[in-house]
Amino acid sequence: MRFHALHHGDEPLLLPNAWDFASGALLAEAGFPAIGTTSLGVAGVAGKPDASGDTKEETVVLARRLARLPVPVTVDLEGGYSERPDDVGALVSELASYGIAGVNLEDGYADGTLRPIDHQVAMIEAVKATAPGVFLNARTDLFWLGKGSLDETLGRANAYADAGADGIFVPGAAEDDDVRVLVEGIPLPLNVLHLPGRTDFARLGELGVKRVSCGSLLYRTSLQATVNTALSVAGKPAGRPVPSYADVQSLLEDGA
Amino acid sequence: MRFHALHHGDEPLLLPNAWDFASGALLAEAGFPAIGTTSLGVAGVAGKPDASGDTKEETVVLARRLARLPVPVTVDLEGGYSERPDDVGALVSELASYGIAGVNLEDGYADGTLRPIDHQVAMIEAVKATAPGVFLNARTDLFWLGKGSLDETLGRANAYADAGADGIFVPGAAEDDDVRVLVEGIPLPLNVLHLPGRTDFARLGELGVKRVSCGSLLYRTSLQATVNTALSVAGKPAGRPVPSYADVQSLLEDGA
Repeated sequence: MRFHALHHGDEPLLLPNAWDFASGALLAEAGFPAIGTTSLGVAGVAGKPDASGDTKEETVVLARRLARLPVPVTVDLEGGYSERPDDVGALVSELASYGIAGVNLEDGYADGTLRPIDHQVAMIEAVKATAPGVFLNARTDLFWLGKGSLDETLGRANAYADAGADGIFVPGAAEDDDVRVLVEGIPLPLNVLHLPGRTDFARLGELGVKRVSCGSLLYRTSLQATVNTALSVAGKPAGRPVPSYADVQSLLEDGA
Repeated sequence: MRFHALHHGDEPLLLPNAWDFASGALLAEAGFPAIGTTSLGVAGVAGKPDASGDTKEETVVLARRLARLPVPVTVDLEGGYSERPDDVGALVSELASYGIAGVNLEDGYADGTLRPIDHQVAMIEAVKATAPGVFLNARTDLFWLGKGSLDETLGRANAYADAGADGIFVPGAAEDDDVRVLVEGIPLPLNVLHLPGRTDFARLGELGVKRVSCGSLLYRTSLQATVNTALSVAGKPAGRPVPSYADVQSLLEDGA
């Protein structure tokens, strides 16, 4: 329950997202009390497009590797790699057997549509039935996709809470007013995505956010450092900016 | 033969070393005309100690992924993952079937001793017999390990050249006088390792070096960026230096 308790501290849990063993191990060594994963990083390692639903095996392999770290690990399962609740429950149960402390499960499809609430509720219930000790962070993509109002986001968040979720992740929430409404209207620890230049960790804490994720930012920054270091060794200008999600996804789609 | 030709240009081939699909793809996109791999990176991804001889499978998986890039790829095979020349020949032949353009094969063991010259010559001959079109970069670790003189390094380099190697890699050579002796005494393109603060790409080119490798530097720099970005998101001082090879290896040994 160490991982659950990290969602109830005075300041938010800053969750850095790893994609291989060494990135996770170095983040743990640096003092971060828990480690997440990034689906873009898993896709980048494998050379498959992100959100293809085709990285279940790679995600499980990564989870097994990271489970050896001395800190709790939570695994991004995207949509669960199946639309059958029993499959997703079995997957989380398998991860729990390796020592994984938490999972993320999202309601958005890769094409920008959303799973029906009842379907997502059934997925969450199946996970909690088979792996009740795993912290289930239920992500709703309404806000991120610009597909719904705050009211609708609250509706989904509360349905997921009723289904047994342990936390709610609303990527895209960044403005003070939006975050306040979400904190007040959701009975579980709220997780938001760090957005460079838009969110501030201390401020999010003041507003009552309990968990801040780095998403794919660390992976993308590591790629920037890779290219700039190589350019620098070659004596060339090393000013490559951090690649965007779309930049990396485009490389993965081209290579697939 | 595009990869072979890159060893005979006016300036050295700067070889950036990737460890997953996206790092290789972004380096290729940045204009590097060929991509190598780093065994420390392969080990770091997998969570196994480097030079354990236990990453053959991961190396082959990475090679297959990188073979889809639009530039030639050369794969670090460490000592070949077997002491049987036929095994190493078969491995390189398999890599050639995926479209891999080159390999590195080293004569140093993980314990700091060296394979006998005759044994290493047999390994090189076996590779060239089964995969003659693959650029075989023969690495000798005498200098790197401080176990031999320049004369002995030249002796090994020439034996490997006679056995059919296409290039010679002498990591650790950095001083002008040493590099000059190696360039003059070796009938093949000379590859040295970039050592921050000790080697300069343009100067190595003036001295006649034909290939400069980044080794594990890019991977280690990417890990530095990962940790520092996460610290920065958390509003903490972000001054982690680039982890040394020993730092990363220690993490991998602790996690194994």
